[in-house]
Amino acid sequence: MAKTKRPISARRPNTADMAQFILASASPRRKELLKRLELPFEIIPSSVEENYSNGMAPPEMAKRWALEKARDVAAAHPETIVVGADTIVVLEGNILGKPKDSSEATAMLRKLSNKSHTVHTGVALVQKSNEAVISFVESTEVTFFELDETLISSYVATGSPLDKAGAYGIQDGSTCFVEKVNGCYHNVVGFPVARFVQLVRSEEFKQQFSADIWFASDREIA
Amino acid sequence: MAKTKRPISARRPNTADMAQFILASASPRRKELLKRLELPFEIIPSSVEENYSNGMAPPEMAKRWALEKARDVAAAHPETIVVGADTIVVLEGNILGKPKDSSEATAMLRKLSNKSHTVHTGVALVQKSNEAVISFVESTEVTFFELDETLISSYVATGSPLDKAGAYGIQDGSTCFVEKVNGCYHNVVGFPVARFVQLVRSEEFKQQFSADIWFASDREIA
Repeated sequence: MAKTKRPISARRPNTADMAQFILASASPRRKELLKRLELPFEIIPSSVEENYSNGMAPPEMAKRWALEKARDVAAAHPETIVVGADTIVVLEGNILGKPKDSSEATAMLRKLSNKSHTVHTGVALVQKSNEAVISFVESTEVTFFELDETLISSYVATGSPLDKAGAYGIQDGSTCFVEKVNGCYHNVVGFPVARFVQLVRSEEFKQQFSADIWFASDREIA
Repeated sequence: MAKTKRPISARRPNTADMAQFILASASPRRKELLKRLELPFEIIPSSVEENYSNGMAPPEMAKRWALEKARDVAAAHPETIVVGADTIVVLEGNILGKPKDSSEATAMLRKLSNKSHTVHTGVALVQKSNEAVISFVESTEVTFFELDETLISSYVATGSPLDKAGAYGIQDGSTCFVEKVNGCYHNVVGFPVARFVQLVRSEEFKQQFSADIWFASDREIA
């Protein structure tokens, strides 16, 4: 059911509060980032548990688990566009998951100190009824300043590292750890918003998916 | 009046609401970024008008105007640490200032489309009574996706470009224009927070300035 070409600047339907897609993620950072786009969506976290032990390269793995999460939720919501995402942090070839306690968080931050690591976020869009699937991975290199024990211990004491891959959230106090990023900043927060917008405004998206995602920027300006 | 060495992790003085420095800038973005550090400061905008027409290289110019602004405010507040900042956006060797109207904003965004530009933020710290001065410049490269006219016109219609050098604020709707940054992200928002924190925690700072700037992360952890 391929869509015919629509003008990019079309009138927004009179359904401003209707969810345009489902975000298959419980991450409060992803929710926050997507809310900024001023487009209504619904959150239905997937029940998929990531398993990174299968020897795939990290970017492929991030894409794979994004897809698994999207498919999991799409099974019960076949008509709706479901967006899955998965973020993997890699330092010197090793994946850094979510630390299980403060001492693991401290150890991770010590490892990240004064080095560069890479954050890969896989994103997958699925519309089951339409057999539409698009996925991509965005990778950002992050370089940390040298961290002293005072910085590490006070950050760990905030509790912030515990639910985050790599033991930090770039948008919180650890923003002061970051000397530079090379790539998409919001990808490190947890979702590559800019590339997502590029994708859903593209011809590729319009041809595969039988629904629109409407952005504030696509609204007709009065 | 050089300071003696203090331990990095010192007890915070019992003056949590006392301003620790003056920010000599009226920029709401800078205020917002510095507020996140959870340290009290006061805002006293300088009355200095930047003039970029003197043939200096942009990074030097950003540092120079940051210093002029800090000195301007420090003249009336000699005991307090005054922080000045100045941001300059450069595309292909040309400085992009604040657009004077919508049509200039549109023209700037068309120029930025599908290209990389550089954002230089100069930062200067001055404590007049102490003859203490430190300044630095942070430079970040920003690459824009190709922008279509719909994106440009709807962003210009928000009014957001008008008070911003380069006609965009990376933290607002134009975040979707940005393919990647190379360097400090917050530098593009208007203030290189991470490097500022590095500086005020450094020995160089402690030796020159006869006052502390206390961070949440320097508090003793109970």
